[in-house]
Amino acid sequence: MAVRTIEWKNGRVVMIDQRLLPTREVYRVYSHYREVAAAIKDMVVRGAPAMGIALGARGLKGDMARDFDRICRTFAATRPTAVNLFWAIQRMRRVFKRNQHRSADTLRTLLEREALAMHDEDVAANRSLGRHGATLIEDGATILTHCNAGALATAGYGTALGIVRGAVEAGKRVQVIACEARPFLQGARLTAWELKRDRIPVTLITDGMAGHLMQRGRVSCVVVGTDRTAANGDVANKIGTYTLAVLAHRHAIPFYVAAPISSIDLDCPRGEKIPIEERPPREVTHVFDRQIAPSGVRVFNPAFDVTPSELVTAIVTERGVARQPLGRTLARLVAGDASRRERKLEPRKQRRR
Amino acid sequence: MAVRTIEWKNGRVVMIDQRLLPTREVYRVYSHYREVAAAIKDMVVRGAPAMGIALGARGLKGDMARDFDRICRTFAATRPTAVNLFWAIQRMRRVFKRNQHRSADTLRTLLEREALAMHDEDVAANRSLGRHGATLIEDGATILTHCNAGALATAGYGTALGIVRGAVEAGKRVQVIACEARPFLQGARLTAWELKRDRIPVTLITDGMAGHLMQRGRVSCVVVGTDRTAANGDVANKIGTYTLAVLAHRHAIPFYVAAPISSIDLDCPRGEKIPIEERPPREVTHVFDRQIAPSGVRVFNPAFDVTPSELVTAIVTERGVARQPLGRTLARLVAGDASRRERKLEPRKQRRR
Repeated sequence: MAVRTIEWKNGRVVMIDQRLLPTREVYRVYSHYREVAAAIKDMVVRGAPAMGIALGARGLKGDMARDFDRICRTFAATRPTAVNLFWAIQRMRRVFKRNQHRSADTLRTLLEREALAMHDEDVAANRSLGRHGATLIEDGATILTHCNAGALATAGYGTALGIVRGAVEAGKRVQVIACEARPFLQGARLTAWELKRDRIPVTLITDGMAGHLMQRGRVSCVVVGTDRTAANGDVANKIGTYTLAVLAHRHAIPFYVAAPISSIDLDCPRGEKIPIEERPPREVTHVFDRQIAPSGVRVFNPAFDVTPSELVTAIVTERGVARQPLGRTLARLVAGDASRRERKLEPRKQRRR
Repeated sequence: MAVRTIEWKNGRVVMIDQRLLPTREVYRVYSHYREVAAAIKDMVVRGAPAMGIALGARGLKGDMARDFDRICRTFAATRPTAVNLFWAIQRMRRVFKRNQHRSADTLRTLLEREALAMHDEDVAANRSLGRHGATLIEDGATILTHCNAGALATAGYGTALGIVRGAVEAGKRVQVIACEARPFLQGARLTAWELKRDRIPVTLITDGMAGHLMQRGRVSCVVVGTDRTAANGDVANKIGTYTLAVLAHRHAIPFYVAAPISSIDLDCPRGEKIPIEERPPREVTHVFDRQIAPSGVRVFNPAFDVTPSELVTAIVTERGVARQPLGRTLARLVAGDASRRERKLEPRKQRRR
């Protein structure tokens, strides 16, 4: 069973502190939305904006619309690249707008319910994505992945690692090669940790070793997540992903992207329009508190890169697998989702009483 | 002026402890050859086998041939990939063999002289290589390099960084992008340190960022060193080099290899024949003493990879620049060197009295 990353408990948000993994498993309790926003910015967790907003909504009084807007803007300012952050904020804004004539108590309950629904939907979507993705994985495969697109990056099942879990649940014997993903080492710290915990065989390498392994024929496919995928199928993901795609292309190794519908941004035509977050130099010059570079050295620290659509073999969503030409198939999958969402909006709410 | 890496001082070997850089600049004094061999194995320094053997020769008595052979074998067992280690040992063996009828005192003096000659020749060769390489570098270029092929990797000028220094000495304005080179971080710890010390502009990145920079058009050329280059031009170098070559090829960026003649192994027909050292898992699971991966996780840690000849734009030696077809031009350059060495052997010795 994959780790529970984020939980709503008695009006508070409980989250695992990912910065301390893998050597310490510490859960932190947040009772103020600003703490949750800071935790997202500091990479204590990824995601969690909806629960953070629900937490903020507990303090609504007076000019509720103004205060709610401030809360939403606080979360929007945490990180620029991942689009599902904005998507989640948008959903919370919609619930607020539709119900702003109601009492603060009712609003709070509705927002809390929406956040919990999104959490459950996220797990369900990941499981569905995992099942679709598993059909692409051969028995005996060695899957190379980058960074962490696992339980720790989502509500609890994972996207890229959801495909790995889906393959395992389908009875396939697979093993994973995890790139460590400098500078923040999510591969070494998080992916290796959660796969080991699930007893899925994993081998850790540094980012520069992937090419050598592909050259030696030891990689069956690459499976990565995405923070935002543009309408044409260009994929923004953790820095280093583009390099893996170029290497996979040279070796004719399939390159799969696990992309929940919420991470596909049809408003963004091409990858070059996706804002790329630059993070503090200290992540590069230090590992935890250990200085590894000369003081004052100039550093470039982009957190993401963009893989052009042409290098992507297929994009796996919870609604199915999009193949080339990605632009067309992605639009169809997302549209299918939108029409379904409209139809299901009320029934889903009723179900959650 | 580049740092002095290794010195012979009053019958001892003094070396900078590269493991402590960049935060501490510590020089260690070695008086026993086994300590020098251990230092090479533990990556306190690279190179230095000749001075280590000369140090060992100071203790020769009794069955000198047997003892000398044991010393040489100790150094041959330190690291398998870099061929100039074996080349240096071979030169020391040749001096011993030619003079083994002489007294222990004379032998010791001749071996010490040979080690010092090799040291000086190394610096001279690097300077010459740097001058040849500088002709390939355009004014205003941004040179991406990997690991450390600088003063710290040689007797004191560098091969890849020798080309950078050569370009600077030729009046060109250049800047360097240094890949950190996980796991051992020679780029962050050594390259950034020695370039900063020489006031050559340097920007540090993690290994996964190179592709993104090339994609954005921010790299003019790649210049790397080599631990061994095969007869056909396949290049073994620090793990991660192959990835940079594939990326450079995709972006039509020139990929240059700085290869002293002593690193070209004509006895090795192709790169796949080059033994690739695997180093301890701890280098990947830890950064200095800090654990960054779950305890007991499986690790793969090859220290080198092989870049196929076809991805190499040119190989720069101290005798000139070899272009495609590399196999033919390399053989010519090395042969030229061998005939010159024969001719110069006696005069050089006389010069060094």
